[in-house]
Amino acid sequence: MIQMYDLAAADPAVRFSPYCWRTRMALAHKGLDVETIAWRFTDRDALAFSGQARVPVIRDGETVVFDSWEIARYLERQYPGKPSLFGGPGGEAHARFINSWADGVLNPGLIGLVVGDVFAVIAEKDRDYFHKSRTERFGMPPDQVQANRDKTVVAFRQSLAPVRTTLAAQSFIGGDAPSYADYIVMGGFMWARNVSDFEPLEASDPIAAWRERMLDLHDGLGRNAPRANLRAR
Amino acid sequence: MIQMYDLAAADPAVRFSPYCWRTRMALAHKGLDVETIAWRFTDRDALAFSGQARVPVIRDGETVVFDSWEIARYLERQYPGKPSLFGGPGGEAHARFINSWADGVLNPGLIGLVVGDVFAVIAEKDRDYFHKSRTERFGMPPDQVQANRDKTVVAFRQSLAPVRTTLAAQSFIGGDAPSYADYIVMGGFMWARNVSDFEPLEASDPIAAWRERMLDLHDGLGRNAPRANLRAR
Repeated sequence: MIQMYDLAAADPAVRFSPYCWRTRMALAHKGLDVETIAWRFTDRDALAFSGQARVPVIRDGETVVFDSWEIARYLERQYPGKPSLFGGPGGEAHARFINSWADGVLNPGLIGLVVGDVFAVIAEKDRDYFHKSRTERFGMPPDQVQANRDKTVVAFRQSLAPVRTTLAAQSFIGGDAPSYADYIVMGGFMWARNVSDFEPLEASDPIAAWRERMLDLHDGLGRNAPRANLRAR
Repeated sequence: MIQMYDLAAADPAVRFSPYCWRTRMALAHKGLDVETIAWRFTDRDALAFSGQARVPVIRDGETVVFDSWEIARYLERQYPGKPSLFGGPGGEAHARFINSWADGVLNPGLIGLVVGDVFAVIAEKDRDYFHKSRTERFGMPPDQVQANRDKTVVAFRQSLAPVRTTLAAQSFIGGDAPSYADYIVMGGFMWARNVSDFEPLEASDPIAAWRERMLDLHDGLGRNAPRANLRAR
């Protein structure tokens, strides 16, 4: 069975990395069983076998692959008889653009909305590392970054226009059925969902309806994923 | 031979619509001969046969197709034996995202940089229509919209990050070879190139190197396209 190192909160059942969610959903799309291993930011030694220090990492027999994009490419090539993640070579090439957009627009937008919530739910041993690294990155502490989110969410929603326009014309970014491009984008929304009760979308947004469809896929993989105990804060 | 109605400047040889350039390059990609017909914004009657008032419109025998995206889909289906525009069904679905991004981010960014130059090169009979409609759209006259372009170009360049990151990993948005996704994006740069001497890209930008490759495609279709006589203003 494929093993996957997966970023976890203080509650090891809560998985929130947008990049790990891409991989998790890609594995489900391929119908591949996976054993996920809860990993924390400071568990550097646990990934030494991969030659780097970030998740997702998968181990498939003797093969180790890291970086969500490289994992998707690996799965597509290694399991060509399973449902395609990309829908052909053009689909893969164009998905890289969507991956770049999500890494550069979607996820940076989301982190500005929920980074304080992430800080509130991560493992005790991760808190110093996370607070210091994010405070350096944003020039202010996590709580302060998200303090104005009722206002900054407006620009975030506008930045999703390419997704919205696409979903006005087709059910999934992949067309009639989900592709890896859907998992790229949904990874961000799983992240926000599992650490925060802040709603980044308007209820009437077609992206919200798509998100519901995505939560239902693969026997409710997304919908059934444990969320942090937000009431307990 | 396929006929294509193509937005022209005062000089009928100067073609500058980003959407028409998508179609023009898609036709070249398919190896299809085309007769282009110079069309001006106010030539509404000339398009009456298509049931709407915008270019590009193509007529292929008895078939009339309008809207650059629909034309690309038509060409892909009608000429399956010619080089593929999308590289498979996933490529087409994902290209719609790139199309949405270009329509919502790239082209609105470019118009802010060159709309005054467009106004300077269009046909005399189009000038009233263009000035009025663009002044309404932007809340100020075309010249004023682009007046701060030395500053606004900075944010424009940042907005191209998804293209830049993609091209750091592959030669074309379509992968090793150009796809319709490349023509979607290149349409914008052809528009700017043919009406303006303003340079929207830094020389060191990988997108500028890609643009050179795109200009060379199809026997230099882009590079050889007439530009407005910018010195004459």
